[in-house]
Amino acid sequence: MRVELLAVGTELLFGDIVNGNAAWLGRRLAEVGADVTTSVVVGDNVDRIASSVTTALSRADAVVITGGIGPTQDDLTREALAAAAGVPLVRDPDLEAGLRTRFAALRRDVPEMNYKQADLPAGARPIANPRGSAPGVRVEIGSGVAYALPGVPHEMERMFTDDVLPDLLRLGGQPAAIVHRVLRTAGMWESAVAAALEPQVARLERDGGVTVAFLASGGQTRVRLTAKAETYDAAVAMIAPEEAAARAALGSAVYGTDDDTLEGVVVALLRDRSATVATAESLTGGLLGAELSRAPGSSDVYLGGVVTYATEVKRDLLGVPEEVIEEYGVISDECAAAMATGVRDRLGATYGVSLTGVAGPTEQEGKPVGTVHIGIAGPAGAFTRALRLPGDRPQVRTYAVVAAENLLRLHLLGE
Amino acid sequence: MRVELLAVGTELLFGDIVNGNAAWLGRRLAEVGADVTTSVVVGDNVDRIASSVTTALSRADAVVITGGIGPTQDDLTREALAAAAGVPLVRDPDLEAGLRTRFAALRRDVPEMNYKQADLPAGARPIANPRGSAPGVRVEIGSGVAYALPGVPHEMERMFTDDVLPDLLRLGGQPAAIVHRVLRTAGMWESAVAAALEPQVARLERDGGVTVAFLASGGQTRVRLTAKAETYDAAVAMIAPEEAAARAALGSAVYGTDDDTLEGVVVALLRDRSATVATAESLTGGLLGAELSRAPGSSDVYLGGVVTYATEVKRDLLGVPEEVIEEYGVISDECAAAMATGVRDRLGATYGVSLTGVAGPTEQEGKPVGTVHIGIAGPAGAFTRALRLPGDRPQVRTYAVVAAENLLRLHLLGE
Repeated sequence: MRVELLAVGTELLFGDIVNGNAAWLGRRLAEVGADVTTSVVVGDNVDRIASSVTTALSRADAVVITGGIGPTQDDLTREALAAAAGVPLVRDPDLEAGLRTRFAALRRDVPEMNYKQADLPAGARPIANPRGSAPGVRVEIGSGVAYALPGVPHEMERMFTDDVLPDLLRLGGQPAAIVHRVLRTAGMWESAVAAALEPQVARLERDGGVTVAFLASGGQTRVRLTAKAETYDAAVAMIAPEEAAARAALGSAVYGTDDDTLEGVVVALLRDRSATVATAESLTGGLLGAELSRAPGSSDVYLGGVVTYATEVKRDLLGVPEEVIEEYGVISDECAAAMATGVRDRLGATYGVSLTGVAGPTEQEGKPVGTVHIGIAGPAGAFTRALRLPGDRPQVRTYAVVAAENLLRLHLLGE
Repeated sequence: MRVELLAVGTELLFGDIVNGNAAWLGRRLAEVGADVTTSVVVGDNVDRIASSVTTALSRADAVVITGGIGPTQDDLTREALAAAAGVPLVRDPDLEAGLRTRFAALRRDVPEMNYKQADLPAGARPIANPRGSAPGVRVEIGSGVAYALPGVPHEMERMFTDDVLPDLLRLGGQPAAIVHRVLRTAGMWESAVAAALEPQVARLERDGGVTVAFLASGGQTRVRLTAKAETYDAAVAMIAPEEAAARAALGSAVYGTDDDTLEGVVVALLRDRSATVATAESLTGGLLGAELSRAPGSSDVYLGGVVTYATEVKRDLLGVPEEVIEEYGVISDECAAAMATGVRDRLGATYGVSLTGVAGPTEQEGKPVGTVHIGIAGPAGAFTRALRLPGDRPQVRTYAVVAAENLLRLHLLGE
């Protein structure tokens, strides 16, 4: 099946907005094997939108349009679809009633302008928009189908997933249910994750079924499993054993699924244990604390910490012994252990986590950029982990925070 | 002048990459008044690229192509341009010599595959690529012009600015030099910046000349002045008085220009004064420290700090008096002043900066989300500033950090 994308909006041509919708749609369509051959952006102009729709459907089976279906004068996608289909716009009584209901709930009259959102090209059907006010449009033009969706990403994505994609798959004679499962990992680079899953991926490529994609960002790697089947339940049933196999291969590197975050998982593990944590940071300057306090409600778990950017502060505020600094330097396991123990004691936390190292751009104490020591102090004493992280200064700092959060997570899990 | 954009690359259609080049080019072309009417993405396919070029030039005066000019088998833009122009590819002796020189410097033979980068459609001229190895192509097709540039943004941007844009402006009979000047402000919302510059903008819109754009992000507002003239010097001369007028209207809200950062300016001001700073953070959890330590070399100015997420930590680690907490609460000017003084004393810094407040999602001590108190302690004592910031939890935290950095900056400037 060939699909083209058409984004409508002068603001896209001006570069005020990047066309992220096209990238998102491209990924979703590629996952189901649809062939996206062209993606076009046009401004808010009826003739250009209409001729772009006609051109797209001369080459492809379907065109997915984003943008131009709001209530204002420059929302022209409905008019353009009617022109491309050679039919008039007709007011849909159900959509009109829905408008009245929505505005009645706001104790307002429907603004005259908004009634155009109840208009559809004759023969079209609306596409429900559960996250917003503008309904989408599905209209057959010649032997092709055009789908018009809002430009607002979270509205568009929901409508595409719930309605357009199953419809496209039915048209293409394909199974109509798609289920994704994302496994989130920390502590393994993308290449190591891919290597661990290599036999499973090879088997799936040979036998078909679930597809696997790897996505690396911010020092973490996600594994996305995708299943297509006749029904939602069948797709879920296809994914379940593959998720289990991937988890078995990746072990404790998997910290969560789908929308989980590493800091959220760490905060939840601490909360489950009625434990608290305090941080002592050098090279990361406060980033670890900023991550742990990102989530609402983290204050019952994260007590605070100390940023010891200067060496004297490590000594004065954390009680890192002068001998440790003189004998091992501040870029050392010994200093990391003393920092973690110091911050745990001073803040009265269950756990202290420390980070010291070289963020760059130049070496320090003769240690190369990327050298990082993590310390964890808990009821059973302190331990450390030394790492050599790749990348530039911002990357080293980001990866160091992920490594510290992950080490605490594994420790809380008893590993 | 009408210009279309064409991006080449199957990875763009798959959504592995977002087409940021189109947004960047759209902004640059809009600034000079060019009319960008369509932007297209096609995959790595000679016929589709060639027909897209032909279609674009049937509607526009020029097409700017990004991608597909590297040395590999799927780099097909050169072949497509030759097909669209109906001419053969011809090896350019200067480009070939350049290839040999470049690889000789690496003590390697030119890989056979790379010679295709020396091929041009007959009658085309190369576009120099000072930041990479793939030369661009400028070729006239019928009455239009096609420019092919690399997909790598920093190579493409330089080549577009140095070569393509002046060439386009000459073709359009427009002045060929463009100069931008960005003024960076903090402490004023975009609407206030726009209001302060309203008379100047009205005069420029009436009389022509320099154009003004406002760009808000992360709690800061940038003002971009753009001048077009026959020569670079003339454009600079046009901008100078407008920059002076804007600075007069905005006063000390302007913290820097072009690529300056707020944290970089604060660190530089401290360094100039041989002063140091320490931070005491509550609602921001370490973000202020992370910002101040972002730049390489910040360690001679930023000593470190304390994250006092829990109330007891404010008392124990910073010496915030129990009476202050009981009488005023931790969300108060009094607590902010005590935190700033406490962290200044304990770290022996010239200045202490503190942040306490309500990041949300719920109110605290009866104070609404967005309530923020900043404290600054220095050699002359402590002072505070109370703010009510808009937005959700991440926005309140980001804006609070900007406000604290800016308050310290203004204090260092004697305001």
